Amino acid sequence: MGTRRLICPVCGKEYDKPVQRCECGEPVEFEPFKGEPYIARTVWERFYDFWPVEPETELSLGEGDTPLVKSKIGAELGVKLYLKNETANPTWSFKDRGTFLAVSYAVKAGYKAVGTVSTGNMAASVAAYASRFGLDAKILVSESASDEKLKAVSVYGGDVIRVRGDYGRLYFESLRLGERLGVYFVNSDNPFRIEGYKGIAFEIAEEVSPDYVLIPTSSGGLFRGIAKGFIELRESGLIEELPTLIAVQAEGCSPICRAFSEEMDRIERFENPHTIAKAIANPYPPSGDAVLKLLRKFGWLCATVSDEEILKAQRELAREGLFVQPASATGVAALKKLTESGVIPEGSKVVSILTGSGLKTLSHAECGEITECALENLEKCLR
Amino acid sequence: MGTRRLICPVCGKEYDKPVQRCECGEPVEFEPFKGEPYIARTVWERFYDFWPVEPETELSLGEGDTPLVKSKIGAELGVKLYLKNETANPTWSFKDRGTFLAVSYAVKAGYKAVGTVSTGNMAASVAAYASRFGLDAKILVSESASDEKLKAVSVYGGDVIRVRGDYGRLYFESLRLGERLGVYFVNSDNPFRIEGYKGIAFEIAEEVSPDYVLIPTSSGGLFRGIAKGFIELRESGLIEELPTLIAVQAEGCSPICRAFSEEMDRIERFENPHTIAKAIANPYPPSGDAVLKLLRKFGWLCATVSDEEILKAQRELAREGLFVQPASATGVAALKKLTESGVIPEGSKVVSILTGSGLKTLSHAECGEITECALENLEKCLR
Repeated sequence: MGTRRLICPVCGKEYDKPVQRCECGEPVEFEPFKGEPYIARTVWERFYDFWPVEPETELSLGEGDTPLVKSKIGAELGVKLYLKNETANPTWSFKDRGTFLAVSYAVKAGYKAVGTVSTGNMAASVAAYASRFGLDAKILVSESASDEKLKAVSVYGGDVIRVRGDYGRLYFESLRLGERLGVYFVNSDNPFRIEGYKGIAFEIAEEVSPDYVLIPTSSGGLFRGIAKGFIELRESGLIEELPTLIAVQAEGCSPICRAFSEEMDRIERFENPHTIAKAIANPYPPSGDAVLKLLRKFGWLCATVSDEEILKAQRELAREGLFVQPASATGVAALKKLTESGVIPEGSKVVSILTGSGLKTLSHAECGEITECALENLEKCLR
Repeated sequence: MGTRRLICPVCGKEYDKPVQRCECGEPVEFEPFKGEPYIARTVWERFYDFWPVEPETELSLGEGDTPLVKSKIGAELGVKLYLKNETANPTWSFKDRGTFLAVSYAVKAGYKAVGTVSTGNMAASVAAYASRFGLDAKILVSESASDEKLKAVSVYGGDVIRVRGDYGRLYFESLRLGERLGVYFVNSDNPFRIEGYKGIAFEIAEEVSPDYVLIPTSSGGLFRGIAKGFIELRESGLIEELPTLIAVQAEGCSPICRAFSEEMDRIERFENPHTIAKAIANPYPPSGDAVLKLLRKFGWLCATVSDEEILKAQRELAREGLFVQPASATGVAALKKLTESGVIPEGSKVVSILTGSGLKTLSHAECGEITECALENLEKCLR
């Protein structure tokens, strides 16, 4: 570990100070790490060489080290499918890994407050870790955020602020104002957050050598983090080959896949986004260009799925015992199309990332059929 | 591992066949295991010697191996407090440990269907694992079960049956009819379920040697499982001393604590139960007498807490980043009283079990304050 430069993955400019975005407007990232794993209980300790800041393990909530579950859906499709269950994190989404590392940095850098721009998983995660670390939290949510969602955020304490105005602009405004006011904003592709997500790649590599990894992709932060993790493992000689990473988006909001398939240089805002997978419905993802560049550099893929396919995959995952939010089901939905079309060949080893718990979107879930029965008639009802 | 006898912990009668309850009416349990731990990834492998049936690890959902989190609440009370975060399980409660082991048995014994009697965590857990194992599920819920709760159950598939009639009788009726109809009922204190909970004790002992363990207690199944785990560790020479276990109940439904403090031989039905902690509101717990016997045999304790104390502890835990259901906050609520009264002395090492996720009772949670702000005024709102 030590002080690392930050590099813009799009234009290449380097920075010695802890900026969040490049002058060119793109997100920066830490230069690559190399290292070796240690024998230890937590991913933070085992991959100690790979973090840009000392993880504050005394204040860890146990984020990371999530189960990799063997899925029966794979057998039906002729592949070996593993599900990385990120719903088993402290606030029940993958966001906790990135939040923990970013807040570890914020404390060391002397910040007294952290913030984020989010309406869902990330808002809850930053609120939780801010409280845990004894920091103030400024949680900026959009006008459209439902009271149900905000309940699961405001419970952790911190200031929840509903902002009227363009949500895309809010991302940049929060960074600008945060710098001026001493609030460290940990938005979707904050450089420390990206580093935290590398742990997903590290843990996968400890158990299997996947041919493909399916990643629900919205802002692009998760995709970039997992990509960086696998790349660093290969650069360190710890894996032989990179898996093919597949960014999965909802058809109704797929700015990255569109730019990729239409061979555009940059992503463009996706007009009138509409999908059931709210957690990945960012119409103008701040890391979109960086993801696009990764896809092209490594010959990786982008896939879209319809709301109908998402809901079907969500039901099938629940029938395996894993109840996820719609966004988390996009990977399995995409797998079906990609095996049918032969893009993913038979016999492949595939990992799909389950990003967040279905309990977070419970009000949108359908209630199954409930049978009514009197205790006297129980035997008949059980037959 | 091997075939083990079942023993009634209350009257002592032994059984060679896999009964669920003794002729005397009390729950049976497996005779004690002895063994040694192995180096492995999962609790099922590390404590392989201690299970009454081979865990079906191929079908595991990653239950168990939950984080033990250092709490700052302890410092305020002059003790070292650790929180065992069972909300990080596949269906976000401790029930998954017991369900997994019991369903592993059901499959080996040739059952095609499993069932349970529950309105909450256990219903979701059994529905999830039944689907995972390819079994039919009969989930019996009480009349009062809310649609919100049943959503989080029915999503996993299986038959959800709302039964009109006495809920306490339903427990026994389900066992009787299940036997006749070939449905293996995995109720709250099924012997395999109890064994699954031992993993909580094993994992705690791998990290700390607690002086006290606070356990939210309803049916008594969780308490008995954790107790059996620590007892087997001591019998195996793996720990020196048993911790003092403390059964924690809500004041408004505390049949075990009442029987304990009033020196009754047996528990009695708690009339007009009323508490916010619905998950531990069983007025006539099927393992109540067995818990009572353990408390007396080992000089352990029982403590009650008010709804107000529970809600306060729930808020404090959320301020540490852990959002739990009210029942899960009872341990920390009790800790405050027990340190103030000197029952738990300063400097003690204490573990409190967080049994289930706060998302499961989200509709009952209060929404915190939300500030409204226009993007133009963001700087003012952030100050």
